[in-house]
Amino acid sequence: MTRMMKAAIFVEPGRIVLGEKPIPDVGPLDALIRVTTTTICGTDVHILKGEYPVEKGLTIGHEPVGVIEKLGSAVSGYREGQRVIAGAITPSGHSYACLCGCHSQDGAGTRHGFKPMGGWRFGNTIDGCQAEYLLVPDAMANLSPVPDALTDEQVLMCPDIMSTGLSGAESGKVRIGDTVAVFALGPIGLCAAAGARLMGATTIIGVDTVPERLAVARSLGVDHVVDFKAGDPVEAIMKLTDGRGVDVAIEALGTQQTFESCLKVLRPGGTLSSLGVYSSDLTIPLGPFMAGLGDLKIVTTLCPGGKERMRRLMEVVASGRIDLQAMVTHRFPLERIEEAYELFANQRDGVLKVAITP
Amino acid sequence: MTRMMKAAIFVEPGRIVLGEKPIPDVGPLDALIRVTTTTICGTDVHILKGEYPVEKGLTIGHEPVGVIEKLGSAVSGYREGQRVIAGAITPSGHSYACLCGCHSQDGAGTRHGFKPMGGWRFGNTIDGCQAEYLLVPDAMANLSPVPDALTDEQVLMCPDIMSTGLSGAESGKVRIGDTVAVFALGPIGLCAAAGARLMGATTIIGVDTVPERLAVARSLGVDHVVDFKAGDPVEAIMKLTDGRGVDVAIEALGTQQTFESCLKVLRPGGTLSSLGVYSSDLTIPLGPFMAGLGDLKIVTTLCPGGKERMRRLMEVVASGRIDLQAMVTHRFPLERIEEAYELFANQRDGVLKVAITP
Amino acid sequence: MTRMMKAAIFVEPGRIVLGEKPIPDVGPLDALIRVTTTTICGTDVHILKGEYPVEKGLTIGHEPVGVIEKLGSAVSGYREGQRVIAGAITPSGHSYACLCGCHSQDGAGTRHGFKPMGGWRFGNTIDGCQAEYLLVPDAMANLSPVPDALTDEQVLMCPDIMSTGLSGAESGKVRIGDTVAVFALGPIGLCAAAGARLMGATTIIGVDTVPERLAVARSLGVDHVVDFKAGDPVEAIMKLTDGRGVDVAIEALGTQQTFESCLKVLRPGGTLSSLGVYSSDLTIPLGPFMAGLGDLKIVTTLCPGGKERMRRLMEVVASGRIDLQAMVTHRFPLERIEEAYELFANQRDGVLKVAITP
Amino acid sequence: MTRMMKAAIFVEPGRIVLGEKPIPDVGPLDALIRVTTTTICGTDVHILKGEYPVEKGLTIGHEPVGVIEKLGSAVSGYREGQRVIAGAITPSGHSYACLCGCHSQDGAGTRHGFKPMGGWRFGNTIDGCQAEYLLVPDAMANLSPVPDALTDEQVLMCPDIMSTGLSGAESGKVRIGDTVAVFALGPIGLCAAAGARLMGATTIIGVDTVPERLAVARSLGVDHVVDFKAGDPVEAIMKLTDGRGVDVAIEALGTQQTFESCLKVLRPGGTLSSLGVYSSDLTIPLGPFMAGLGDLKIVTTLCPGGKERMRRLMEVVASGRIDLQAMVTHRFPLERIEEAYELFANQRDGVLKVAITP
Repeated sequence: MTRMMKAAIFVEPGRIVLGEKPIPDVGPLDALIRVTTTTICGTDVHILKGEYPVEKGLTIGHEPVGVIEKLGSAVSGYREGQRVIAGAITPSGHSYACLCGCHSQDGAGTRHGFKPMGGWRFGNTIDGCQAEYLLVPDAMANLSPVPDALTDEQVLMCPDIMSTGLSGAESGKVRIGDTVAVFALGPIGLCAAAGARLMGATTIIGVDTVPERLAVARSLGVDHVVDFKAGDPVEAIMKLTDGRGVDVAIEALGTQQTFESCLKVLRPGGTLSSLGVYSSDLTIPLGPFMAGLGDLKIVTTLCPGGKERMRRLMEVVASGRIDLQAMVTHRFPLERIEEAYELFANQRDGVLKVAITP
Repeated sequence: MTRMMKAAIFVEPGRIVLGEKPIPDVGPLDALIRVTTTTICGTDVHILKGEYPVEKGLTIGHEPVGVIEKLGSAVSGYREGQRVIAGAITPSGHSYACLCGCHSQDGAGTRHGFKPMGGWRFGNTIDGCQAEYLLVPDAMANLSPVPDALTDEQVLMCPDIMSTGLSGAESGKVRIGDTVAVFALGPIGLCAAAGARLMGATTIIGVDTVPERLAVARSLGVDHVVDFKAGDPVEAIMKLTDGRGVDVAIEALGTQQTFESCLKVLRPGGTLSSLGVYSSDLTIPLGPFMAGLGDLKIVTTLCPGGKERMRRLMEVVASGRIDLQAMVTHRFPLERIEEAYELFANQRDGVLKVAITP
Repeated sequence: MTRMMKAAIFVEPGRIVLGEKPIPDVGPLDALIRVTTTTICGTDVHILKGEYPVEKGLTIGHEPVGVIEKLGSAVSGYREGQRVIAGAITPSGHSYACLCGCHSQDGAGTRHGFKPMGGWRFGNTIDGCQAEYLLVPDAMANLSPVPDALTDEQVLMCPDIMSTGLSGAESGKVRIGDTVAVFALGPIGLCAAAGARLMGATTIIGVDTVPERLAVARSLGVDHVVDFKAGDPVEAIMKLTDGRGVDVAIEALGTQQTFESCLKVLRPGGTLSSLGVYSSDLTIPLGPFMAGLGDLKIVTTLCPGGKERMRRLMEVVASGRIDLQAMVTHRFPLERIEEAYELFANQRDGVLKVAITP
Repeated sequence: MTRMMKAAIFVEPGRIVLGEKPIPDVGPLDALIRVTTTTICGTDVHILKGEYPVEKGLTIGHEPVGVIEKLGSAVSGYREGQRVIAGAITPSGHSYACLCGCHSQDGAGTRHGFKPMGGWRFGNTIDGCQAEYLLVPDAMANLSPVPDALTDEQVLMCPDIMSTGLSGAESGKVRIGDTVAVFALGPIGLCAAAGARLMGATTIIGVDTVPERLAVARSLGVDHVVDFKAGDPVEAIMKLTDGRGVDVAIEALGTQQTFESCLKVLRPGGTLSSLGVYSSDLTIPLGPFMAGLGDLKIVTTLCPGGKERMRRLMEVVASGRIDLQAMVTHRFPLERIEEAYELFANQRDGVLKVAITP
């Protein structure tokens, strides 16, 4: 008899509903996780709204904390009952992409081994974790044990928000003494700012307008907060940097305006590190691009995944270097996830992140 | 009595004429060079046409080979009569930009030390080398002795074409076994292809349509030549790479079309290395940009300068690794430089580069 | 009934003999390869002599070319009958080490995921390929299809010699215009020199004394050959570089003398890239080490493995950039492998590499 | 009439005395600084003891804070009366070494442009700053204005201690989530630990035995302190890391024992970042070196200098990221510098650093 579980299922644009699905079978390389805590991501809202297409009937969610329920026959190095997380991105480890360090673009199963965003499977190409159980593929590459001392909520940002956010600073190659601007201080941007701080930036400027975000930004070590409704943020940043501009500008929203503002505040030789998910063509303005002669760099990064990445991020949490618990502003049981979507999608009540507990 | 010299002077858009100017005075950090060979660059044609603005009365040209005529009082380590080249970019060596390795964006004299394209002075912000004599600023950072075994024409590409072209491969971080596409095979693109070869790319695909260029490309080690008039070059490259795309795409023209084609042929995680001088805003198409989630990089590079760069490039020439003499298709004395401009600006007679001898 | 196969087995120090073993069973992640060509490595000779300890009864050999005989139940993306190679190093792809790019130190199965040399399994911790059949673990990370146009002998150096040798130049971060010295021109050193050439070094100096090696070195693009019996090679190199020293020195033997000579020829800020397998403590002399103040780097590299590495190396071969066939100086059927060991271990008859065909 | 000044002069091994010297003349590229605060370095003690040879009659000291008294005729971008620091290392900016980013090995004036430790001039090859006035060569590359908000003592560590210490973490390429061990917690080691923290290391282990140092270490963010007199520090570190070892080990003393301990605690693929000044040959033990097959790196770094480095370090101080004022444990006027040497050389009274005010 097939055992059933509850899951948040994408039915059609505008509708993610809590439904029932069979608890998945476990293949030789898989692990079945009983989800204990998960959350909703801005990307899930894009899916909800039909802006990012996924198959109807898919379980949504890519930020799992849970307990190993069952291990595949070829999986070793773990034990059932162990508390683990897995990244939003679950690379196979064995594709050509993985073997050259490009895990997020994993094209396992394709001839060439590269596939755009191929490492992102949960809630995108396979069932996700807004459910009672989650099947983790390539478990040995992806399950990362959670230290006993850390609570579910403490590690809840590791699978995506923290991994993506920090990568904005990492891909920007932030150095000791750098000046860094972060455009948009949602959860990703806040983590990008925290990452810049963690890597030694000495002047961090955050741009947003929501008071709650600006407050959290300050608590995470942002040195200057710029409210883009109070004046042109480009001007404000050029003034704060005494006309020099910034070494690294991090785009954490995905719009023409923030992308363009990033370019405008870069010093010659600077780097625009882009984390945003864009939904239309972008324009590179000639002047800020210095006609192609400014030794500028534009780098884009998809959330890094895999168990080593998760291990490192949990080290960051365990060491107390970054404390993101203040980001969990609301809590819901899985049964009330539709309500959570409603709150989160509309950004009501100062919500930053919600914790969902099956 | 002021001694005079001949020089190619920008008079107004459409007119660069051979005129007379005083031989410049030599400041403490300068060196005066008697130019023996120089050339005309595509950028000079932009100046001629008024597409790139410079001051009226400026001497044009930034690719000098010559002999030291006089050294400034504070210059040591050289002797008069020594045969030298200087890069198109002449960094001071002492600005904040220089001290963090960003020599081409040298802002010596500015408060912050960075200035877009600030390292490019010859024929841009100070008198250039299409003249009998050239004043080289910050001589100790910029004069590079030419080995006796090399002729003027052998090193004529070092100051700009070769330095810029090779940097396309270097900034793209070409690795052993990479597949590289180069869009546009003018002198810069040809050198970019040669650079990709020099760094270990094993499949190099060049795109152009001019038969002479395609022939030189093959002789420089380009593996596949794609004539963009014979079909869509993006399709051709995807076919040549069996659907995988390229690791590095080098833009060597400065147009929307080539920029966009570069993006379209990149594999996830690939790098677009841009050398072109753009004259209008660029559009980044959403699909090839993978919505910002493809771990793509776009890097722009201005010609690297300084004497160490010149030394290395002359080593490349001396070692026989790259032979660019075939690029010098035409020769003119300085007296006939207007004629040379006419030929080069109109790309007549299969011209690649001209040698000008004062 | 168990099918048997022939295999070169380590019996005890001094004795590797051709014996019989069962053809191995195929686990879910494995592939069974019918070996068509393999070779003997200097490391195998260390094993033979008892200088590198392995378990008695182990099949030796880590450089396989062959045909897929059988695929494990969880292996996809390949078909039986396909011609493949696997690297000497066969990373799992899923350990912490692999997930941070340190595949050769793969500690899959250990708690921390790192194990010194852990990626080297063939002929070290599991049966190797000097046999009729070879079991390849973690097949999806390690099997690399051989292009039809390439012969077995053309790709025979990819699994170890070429991968290791080229990595000497790669880890040394050889740049365009570098001067590189390679100490010892056995197969590894020759490939290191070829790698330096491939990455743009413009002056390559090889040190050895065996005439056959010096000849092959020249054919692979070594610019200067130094016979260490004809004088002090350090002096010779300092003279060749006009007192400057080299940017990168590659150690390809594993002795105090070559290690020390590498340090002595480095310019300040230079890199010693070490490939040798050492058998005793090393001394770093104070002077050449510049008392620790010379911005020197010493980097060691174990052969990189995995299918992406193999793919790239076969691209190098297919492109004609490096042709190592001249290295195969002798050929033996598997039946006569003991004879081959005798020849190779004693470096008789100008042997560089032997081809063994089961 | 020559104006005279007081200066701490090396007379002979064992004797550095306060004497009189002429205030130096100012060449075109120089600046004369009136020193307001300086300090004594461990290296100065080596000079005092005759362990590091300098010419008799030389003024010692390489850590200047002061005010511009006079600018050379070719120096622009500064004004007399401006408060500045200069690094211990004063690169010319124009040598081949400088132009490839190797400023500390500056060989300006040599044919090849590289000279071991050539960038270190103050108190080594030219008169230093333990004096009333200091001549700064290549002033435009080396003078860095001090922000008004910072006191002399706040920036006193920038020229050497902080620049060197932080470079230990930088050269080790410390990454977010790394575990880092620092051997010896003198001023350099303390700054190395602070640097590791600044770059995102999440477990920092410091080894020393002096209680004052261990206390400062904790205040700078060292997570675990190991007293090497309380047991084998290698064992302690392996236990703290649960057998994994560290990603980066920083040597901050210059002895065989600390160097060797660093190797012993490295994980495969790890980096030994060496800051120590060694006074005898070193031994690399075979086992911890993994016979050359562990993908280990050993990197050495001399204090980075130049005005951009100083600017960045002052940013670190100004941002409050690191506060090193607690390191200044004693203060002396220049008149009593011999007394200061006596205290510092004998490490009496818990001294970490002394401030000397002319």
